[in-house]
Amino acid sequence: MNYQDVLQQDTIDPLAGKRREFVLPDNMIYLDGNSLGAMPIAAYERSRQVTEQQWGLNLIKGWNADDWIDLPTMVGEKIAPLLGAAPGQVICCDSTSVNLFKVLCSAVEMQQGRSVVVSQKDNFPADLYIAEGLSQLGQGDFCELKVFEGSGIEDQLDDTVALLMLTHVNFRTGKLHDIRKLTKAAHDKGILVIWDLAHSTGVLPLSLDEWGVDFAVGCGYKYLNGGPGAPAFIYAAERHHASIRQPLSGWMGHRAPFAFDENYTAAPGVQQFLCGTPPVLSMSVLDASLSVFENVDMQVLRTKSVALGELFIQLIADNDSLGELTLISPKKSSERGSQVALAHPEAYSICQALIERNVIADFRTPDVLRFGFAPLYLSHQDIWKAVHILADVMASKIYSDEKFSRVQKVT
Amino acid sequence: MNYQDVLQQDTIDPLAGKRREFVLPDNMIYLDGNSLGAMPIAAYERSRQVTEQQWGLNLIKGWNADDWIDLPTMVGEKIAPLLGAAPGQVICCDSTSVNLFKVLCSAVEMQQGRSVVVSQKDNFPADLYIAEGLSQLGQGDFCELKVFEGSGIEDQLDDTVALLMLTHVNFRTGKLHDIRKLTKAAHDKGILVIWDLAHSTGVLPLSLDEWGVDFAVGCGYKYLNGGPGAPAFIYAAERHHASIRQPLSGWMGHRAPFAFDENYTAAPGVQQFLCGTPPVLSMSVLDASLSVFENVDMQVLRTKSVALGELFIQLIADNDSLGELTLISPKKSSERGSQVALAHPEAYSICQALIERNVIADFRTPDVLRFGFAPLYLSHQDIWKAVHILADVMASKIYSDEKFSRVQKVT
Repeated sequence: MNYQDVLQQDTIDPLAGKRREFVLPDNMIYLDGNSLGAMPIAAYERSRQVTEQQWGLNLIKGWNADDWIDLPTMVGEKIAPLLGAAPGQVICCDSTSVNLFKVLCSAVEMQQGRSVVVSQKDNFPADLYIAEGLSQLGQGDFCELKVFEGSGIEDQLDDTVALLMLTHVNFRTGKLHDIRKLTKAAHDKGILVIWDLAHSTGVLPLSLDEWGVDFAVGCGYKYLNGGPGAPAFIYAAERHHASIRQPLSGWMGHRAPFAFDENYTAAPGVQQFLCGTPPVLSMSVLDASLSVFENVDMQVLRTKSVALGELFIQLIADNDSLGELTLISPKKSSERGSQVALAHPEAYSICQALIERNVIADFRTPDVLRFGFAPLYLSHQDIWKAVHILADVMASKIYSDEKFSRVQKVT
Repeated sequence: MNYQDVLQQDTIDPLAGKRREFVLPDNMIYLDGNSLGAMPIAAYERSRQVTEQQWGLNLIKGWNADDWIDLPTMVGEKIAPLLGAAPGQVICCDSTSVNLFKVLCSAVEMQQGRSVVVSQKDNFPADLYIAEGLSQLGQGDFCELKVFEGSGIEDQLDDTVALLMLTHVNFRTGKLHDIRKLTKAAHDKGILVIWDLAHSTGVLPLSLDEWGVDFAVGCGYKYLNGGPGAPAFIYAAERHHASIRQPLSGWMGHRAPFAFDENYTAAPGVQQFLCGTPPVLSMSVLDASLSVFENVDMQVLRTKSVALGELFIQLIADNDSLGELTLISPKKSSERGSQVALAHPEAYSICQALIERNVIADFRTPDVLRFGFAPLYLSHQDIWKAVHILADVMASKIYSDEKFSRVQKVT
């Protein structure tokens, strides 16, 4: 594909206008929206409003006057359509890890007589840590974590298993699980499933209700563009609401938080997953960021995501300088999320050399370069330019310069 | 005391200049800093910087370039001197409720053979809810919550008790516990103590190290002025660090978060209380807010807090229109935090009438009016004016107007 063809793709891109809704530095090609989404202008404007107007002038009155108290529900309801979830099933709160803990506790308690939580060795480590922590609480009898290696998930499912805990998109390779199929297979054995949608929400079409999903958690700061460390969310299917019991029973999840009752009585529905006071500044900014999804068809978004990923893979394959980079993502777009991973022994240094050239990718240990494609603010031209800069870095071997081997705290 | 005397107090107030570091609406008398602190100008400026400069332009590079990754530790170290804590013992993260859960889990696990958690019926309900949630997890055998009524705390302490969980300042009345004395009494019985410092931090001199405190949690959005729902903090005495084990073992508390190991290995020290990705916008703003405490002597702050409280109580007592209001806070300043509570059957409506007159207090069910005194931005004149407006509201009985009885979501 030549540059003219690439430019032509941009002219017919139905999402091309969305880029104007984001702040993006001049000349930066940002391929890390899978790690931290770019800043929507609406987010910046809200951050000024919530400080200048709300906190600054309304102070405590903001809880009513500026609807702070409703933020967890309002934001949840804005995320719900991106998940294929009917209203009343999504709430915004805490971090993905804290939310996973709450959902794990609740789901294990629902499975009386079963206590095994099954997950995959290459699941996102943060999720494994949370399940490990819960499994070691007290006498270690609340649940048992079984982590298996390989792809034979269905072989792990028997009637001792309480829960299957999986991440939809593999954080390194972008490989997709089939949520519908695995949820059905688990249900056939009486197993509940918790899906981590960190790398799916806001970029892949999801149909959680239709797929019969039980619980899901996800992240506000990747493709939802909610800002660094933005609050996360929980999806809980309505059929499970009457059975929810989670130990982080904070006052915001109380049926009547301002009654200041001595005892806890859970709010109805998904709201009982709330715990403490929400971080209003961060959650308000996420709320505003979600406005960029108004009128966006998730199938159109996915089509563009696939086109960007295929263009990237094709350009890599066509370029002789890039033969040393090994594609470790699935080749078939239908099996891949919105990211592509390439392996190379010098991946860390290559990543640093790219960043110096204003192509922002990221590195994952031990040898993985990740490139994420956020279709709301990336063009086909961006992909073309990024691959050519990558080819320059590889051909020149500039990455072997010592300055690129310095280890940073965050990779 | 006449108005001239009150004005005189302001002229000799060593903290008078601090008010200029805050945004405060014209003509508002803000007596709710115990619920949500006012906005420091530095906080507003940081919120612009962290969006415009950091997220907007540095994007993912902000984790290193803007030190986002160090925020939990940096903010913790800024809070430490306000607690009387040597470095390495305070970390900023999550909400007070989530943090209390972590500390409860860890402290109960440290007390092998004991599992009773003792608390007071009039403790902050949110804290009781968290302990209740933990006590009901699984088979309900991790810990047992015993809530007693009345003031005979020491009578509750025997060798079945693992933990004593108390709040330093009573959220309704402002009544103070003697941290040093109760911690010692508990230790004498082999009991650990968890202190909630939500209404103390940033307004009362604290000496946690000297007092031998084990663990404490506290809030970022009251007297620390960190903004609505600002992240909270944990104090853990260094002598306990080797014994910490908490189940919210998220990746930010891992010894090497970016190694993406399959198994969890806790970071050393207080950092192992971290869980998920911190809300950078909210935590950055709290970080900036803490700059107002630079060069503030906590004893000087306390002296002003006491003066404001005594002035308020004296003016109430001197005013014939205010005889219907019953002081339910301790009369002695040494037994009271930085707030004064008055009871009245129509407290809700009186509070609304005050708010309409731009005197911001708050209501706590069933019949309590709370007035908080944040010495960094309140003057003695403010107290004088507030009491006179309160006297007008009471004398005119304007509060009995129907419009003030409307119930809001947040009281």
